[in-house]
Amino acid sequence: MPGARRAAGVRRPHPQPPEEPPAREEQDLLLAAAYVSDAQYNRNIPFETSPQAIRLYYFYNHWTMQAATYFFICIDLSLALFEEPALFPLPFLATSIVEVLCLTAFLGRLVHFAKVTPQMVFWKDTKNICIMLTIVLTLIDLIVYGSLEAVNIHSVRWSRALRPVFLINFPESRQIRRAFRSIRNTLPDILYVFLLFLFSVLMFSLMALKLFGDRGLKTVEGSPYFTNILDIAFELYVLVTTANSPDVMMPAYDFNGWYSLYFITYIIINTYIFMSVFLAVVYNNYRKHLKNEIRKLAYLKRHKMIEAFNLLKVQVGTEFVVKEAQWRRLAKVVAPDISSSHLELLLRVSDEGQKGHVDKMNFLRLADLLNIQVVTINIKRHPLEAWMPRVYQSSASLLVQRMVRHRVFVWVYDVIILVNAIFIALDERNPFISYAEWLFLSLYIIEILLKLYTYEPRSYFGRRQFWNWFDVLIIIAALVATVANTTIQSARKYSSQQILDIVLILRILRLLRVIVSIERFRVIVTTLINIGPAMLTFGGLVLVVYYVFAIIGMEAFHSKVQFFDPNFTAPDALVCGNPALKDSAFARNRYCKNNFNDLASAFILLMELTVVNQWHVLAGGFALVTHQAAKLYFVGFHIVVVILIVNIFIAFILEAFFVAYSLEKSEVETAIEKKIQELGVGIQEEAVQDGKLVDNMDTRDSGFSGDDGDNKRKALKGLYFRIASKKYRTVDALLQQMFESEIAPEDEGPPLDEILNFSPSDICPKNPSFENSA
Amino acid sequence: MPGARRAAGVRRPHPQPPEEPPAREEQDLLLAAAYVSDAQYNRNIPFETSPQAIRLYYFYNHWTMQAATYFFICIDLSLALFEEPALFPLPFLATSIVEVLCLTAFLGRLVHFAKVTPQMVFWKDTKNICIMLTIVLTLIDLIVYGSLEAVNIHSVRWSRALRPVFLINFPESRQIRRAFRSIRNTLPDILYVFLLFLFSVLMFSLMALKLFGDRGLKTVEGSPYFTNILDIAFELYVLVTTANSPDVMMPAYDFNGWYSLYFITYIIINTYIFMSVFLAVVYNNYRKHLKNEIRKLAYLKRHKMIEAFNLLKVQVGTEFVVKEAQWRRLAKVVAPDISSSHLELLLRVSDEGQKGHVDKMNFLRLADLLNIQVVTINIKRHPLEAWMPRVYQSSASLLVQRMVRHRVFVWVYDVIILVNAIFIALDERNPFISYAEWLFLSLYIIEILLKLYTYEPRSYFGRRQFWNWFDVLIIIAALVATVANTTIQSARKYSSQQILDIVLILRILRLLRVIVSIERFRVIVTTLINIGPAMLTFGGLVLVVYYVFAIIGMEAFHSKVQFFDPNFTAPDALVCGNPALKDSAFARNRYCKNNFNDLASAFILLMELTVVNQWHVLAGGFALVTHQAAKLYFVGFHIVVVILIVNIFIAFILEAFFVAYSLEKSEVETAIEKKIQELGVGIQEEAVQDGKLVDNMDTRDSGFSGDDGDNKRKALKGLYFRIASKKYRTVDALLQQMFESEIAPEDEGPPLDEILNFSPSDICPKNPSFENSA
Repeated sequence: MPGARRAAGVRRPHPQPPEEPPAREEQDLLLAAAYVSDAQYNRNIPFETSPQAIRLYYFYNHWTMQAATYFFICIDLSLALFEEPALFPLPFLATSIVEVLCLTAFLGRLVHFAKVTPQMVFWKDTKNICIMLTIVLTLIDLIVYGSLEAVNIHSVRWSRALRPVFLINFPESRQIRRAFRSIRNTLPDILYVFLLFLFSVLMFSLMALKLFGDRGLKTVEGSPYFTNILDIAFELYVLVTTANSPDVMMPAYDFNGWYSLYFITYIIINTYIFMSVFLAVVYNNYRKHLKNEIRKLAYLKRHKMIEAFNLLKVQVGTEFVVKEAQWRRLAKVVAPDISSSHLELLLRVSDEGQKGHVDKMNFLRLADLLNIQVVTINIKRHPLEAWMPRVYQSSASLLVQRMVRHRVFVWVYDVIILVNAIFIALDERNPFISYAEWLFLSLYIIEILLKLYTYEPRSYFGRRQFWNWFDVLIIIAALVATVANTTIQSARKYSSQQILDIVLILRILRLLRVIVSIERFRVIVTTLINIGPAMLTFGGLVLVVYYVFAIIGMEAFHSKVQFFDPNFTAPDALVCGNPALKDSAFARNRYCKNNFNDLASAFILLMELTVVNQWHVLAGGFALVTHQAAKLYFVGFHIVVVILIVNIFIAFILEAFFVAYSLEKSEVETAIEKKIQELGVGIQEEAVQDGKLVDNMDTRDSGFSGDDGDNKRKALKGLYFRIASKKYRTVDALLQQMFESEIAPEDEGPPLDEILNFSPSDICPKNPSFENSA
Repeated sequence: MPGARRAAGVRRPHPQPPEEPPAREEQDLLLAAAYVSDAQYNRNIPFETSPQAIRLYYFYNHWTMQAATYFFICIDLSLALFEEPALFPLPFLATSIVEVLCLTAFLGRLVHFAKVTPQMVFWKDTKNICIMLTIVLTLIDLIVYGSLEAVNIHSVRWSRALRPVFLINFPESRQIRRAFRSIRNTLPDILYVFLLFLFSVLMFSLMALKLFGDRGLKTVEGSPYFTNILDIAFELYVLVTTANSPDVMMPAYDFNGWYSLYFITYIIINTYIFMSVFLAVVYNNYRKHLKNEIRKLAYLKRHKMIEAFNLLKVQVGTEFVVKEAQWRRLAKVVAPDISSSHLELLLRVSDEGQKGHVDKMNFLRLADLLNIQVVTINIKRHPLEAWMPRVYQSSASLLVQRMVRHRVFVWVYDVIILVNAIFIALDERNPFISYAEWLFLSLYIIEILLKLYTYEPRSYFGRRQFWNWFDVLIIIAALVATVANTTIQSARKYSSQQILDIVLILRILRLLRVIVSIERFRVIVTTLINIGPAMLTFGGLVLVVYYVFAIIGMEAFHSKVQFFDPNFTAPDALVCGNPALKDSAFARNRYCKNNFNDLASAFILLMELTVVNQWHVLAGGFALVTHQAAKLYFVGFHIVVVILIVNIFIAFILEAFFVAYSLEKSEVETAIEKKIQELGVGIQEEAVQDGKLVDNMDTRDSGFSGDDGDNKRKALKGLYFRIASKKYRTVDALLQQMFESEIAPEDEGPPLDEILNFSPSDICPKNPSFENSA
């Protein structure tokens, strides 16, 4: 791609030299470009329109500034690795200096933000207040903790739990913020279902107390069974998560078979029905609120584009339009990296009749047009063909090329990969097999070389040829690692564990290639990869929640449970260094390494709690070493993460898959595609993927050069375009595609104030809330 | 309700005496009624139109015949309780005689069916072939098993696993059949995701073998960790179900913290993403196929109604219509129980202009009209008011009535119930508390009596007053049980355990009443109750799958694991009577009662497997006592029940909730409601629910009697109607409401053959299948 772009840049076409604009227009252009850029990236920042503020605003949105902000956020969050209880302990002075540095950076960013936004807006925004408050609180905590530490009193660094506030509240983390807003808005509806669910659990607890309490039953561990209402409620809550099924039922079931009916009823009502209702309520509300957010975004985008249009419009005849030269300069300012041919294509789409100006309707599409990833393919001959045409076109060479392009070539390599898999599964210490590994490695290298010989290298390594890149990187890495390992081994008669592990993983990852050659599988994987970036939002969400819970957990439970090397046979090792754990399920299952003694351990423990199984054993263990109330921490984590966030994750996957199932290209994309086809410069996606690019080129090229009367068309000659519609350039784009179709394209939307105060009930008159539905 | 209907029947209105029809018309009427009845109940049975066949067809659809069929199906299925391995053993001769009886009944039913359907249709229907084949196979199996038994050779009664075929294939179990068809159609799409998922599990297994196999790690039990590829694959499959998390990770995690990344990656990819994708694929396909089925049903209904119309139509002016008298007789034949006032209402809706005939469009709605539950409320005075008006209208009596109707009355009883809950939680052996129970019981009885005094008893016990019925039944049952218990106790100084348990449960169920008085909760509960009947379909589905798996499990695993009374301390008791289980997790967890030694135990065990947790321990136990291949049975069960059926259940709940959220009344219901309102005989649902019926009546009555010039209107006087729209009379109705709105009301649909061969791709041109979506 970079190569293609550079090559296109050489014959940059300027069919109509741009008119020289007066100096005042320069200002308007910059302002309009700021609006368009905001619309393109869905930035929702009201900024001042003075020339100086605009320049500052450009600087504010520059990627270096954003990267710096994220860098400081990362530093700030990772400080927990170095603070007590630490993975890599550093003195308090060091971490506190770094923290103050980070806070200064955040403050600087905030001041910068205050300079570009109108004062009224700045002070009304809770985000900014939140950041300021967190900075102040953190400083106070640092001072208090530091001074207490100086007189040797240990206190709690509580402000560390506030650190994710920075991650949430900086304007760059729109997606995470939106997800949090959706959760907040979903809470009231969930609350009532949750209360009903709690009521049901309590009623069943009461029933269990009466039915089983006086029977004198014993659990497997020999402790009394179902005698205390609080214990029963906890056990039954755990049963909802299925973590203690069927153990919790066994004593009663052993006593009398009919009692199993009690547990089956409980499981059907609370585990199956209530949990599904939670999913339904979360899903429904999440969708409703997301829809509202997206509608807000779409209207804001429209609003900004109209502002930009009003700045640049000139009257031609009866209608206001934007001159082609102005449009061209605007696009260049908004997207400095755009290739001329791409710009030319967009102009053709916007100025359908080639009238030399863009009308309002087409101008408003500019932000969407820029968001569509059009791949410019500069089709060139194979370099070998240019260097030595005689050899490359010889019959032997052509035979090789035909062979490589043949379907059987793929099949043969699939078989080789499968044989390789079997060899991997076999014992490695057999020397014959370790030689075979070299054979496979060379076979794969030969495959890549053959492909590079047959296909044009720059299109083989095209930006969207994910699997080609994957192949080559895996093979090169495996080659390097294997060579390194062999060198070390022969020099020192010892293989490095880390390198060996990496070689093994790389070797097995190669098997993934088989999937790619089966069409059906490739489609599923591609869909999963496409929704991947959007899933990262949930990564952010989970990170925030995990971080807060990890900090709280570290303060509450650190060094209560110790891990000893399994080979170390101290008597303490079996009870994780804490006599309170004697005879507990926690110690019996050897869960000593599941502790809160550093950030990494805490995260892994929280991951185990998210998976749910055995969480009651973990909760029980920590309750034993501290206090029974510790169970509340674990129940709280379950409610927040499993009932809320995991359900939202499932809702998101469902929604994304349904969209993928019924995805239609957006109006704007269709327009571009139509234009590409009209100009005869389109390429079928399959052709590129199957590597038939060069085959197609010949036929296309001849057909195309047949009618080149138009000199603009000439400018595009040798270039091919392809829409990369199925990949979503931004997470927002995917979300918008989910819902944008419902907004009429001609709708100019309500005024700005109204947009910002949308509530979900405005959009869904047909979608009554829970109260009215039954 | 029955009372109301009878009362309405007394003044049966016949404003236009029906014309006497000639004898030939009688035939047409019967045939038309059969069509309408089929359309009403969505029966999809082509029947012959000869007079004799129609009479047989009526007999075939009579409820006694259907009940008898279900009775024999129940008997046939429950035979497994009495056959070896039996809960209540009966000799082989007895069970085989009963089985032959059942088979005869099924054959009879089939022959009856053959008489009413055209022969061509009968022999092309796989359902019938299935039933015949199953009957033959069962007979063969019975004979073979019996003769082998006679010479003392024990063989396998394999045909028992075929018994659910009868449940599925009789025409009455449409819903279950439809669910199975949806599953079958969903399979191909799931298969590819499943293969990909298996591939992923295998790749991770290979990686685990290489990474951990040579480390010499040990599990908590001391067995080698991750050394055999098959064991690893099984462990990793179990990890997908989360049942062995985090235990499976601990040895590797203890060895090196970085290895946790392997497991976290695995869980994210396979547990979270793949399982969500399964849900998405199942949900999407289920919805797609269900939509197709419902469209088929809707067109068939239309088709039948047109047939009926063509039989009865007469020409009036330029259009064909059905005379009012014919329409009236038809409705009476289709719904013999319909009350005259209800019929009158339906006629008013169908014959809007009171022209004395019903046009085609309105005639086609008849089946839908009959399906709408219109509650006829015959408002009468309180019987006490009629008997002794002076006393009932005295100021003291009025004060009592006002008191009972007051909101505070409800609150006071909510407080009483909560106090009661606390008393229940307290120790029961305290005599003061057991006296308090009598106090609470009398308080509740007083409440019911007061309510009966205030509200008209027949409306209090209306068919739709679920919670009133609930109250009264719970209290009466509690009263009877408490009295019985006290009697037994004072007579024999010993309380019966069963009765005590029942009393306890009834006492606690009373607490449910608190929910009813909180509006928000009542709404959620009502929604759940409304989708309850539809959930029963899944009950049928689960029953079929459980039955088949239970029979297979009983044949394979019976008496391998024995349960001994926990107090019995034989050395065998600890290993469930099987030395192979020594030191196994199965025996350690005391899972001996989880066995396949009779049908009930097998069902409970399968329920535990459905809940998933610890299923690997159960599978491991049965693998130890038989063979490692036994694990396949458990994995198969997991795939079928958890991945397929539970996901479909979740999909159904989600869909039903979304429909409930956005439920609009259907066109036909709105027409009836409009008519009810026009006639001024409507009653607000809330008024009835809050018991304000009598209050409203007075005001309404006076307004209504103001204009009764029309004698038809007089016929309706004193009667009030209410649409019970939110309850679904049949499961089909709910499903149809989900999708029917998408079919245009004027569409006559394609010809019959085409309808029967619809495929889902016909309806969803905008919903491309997976292959095209990425």
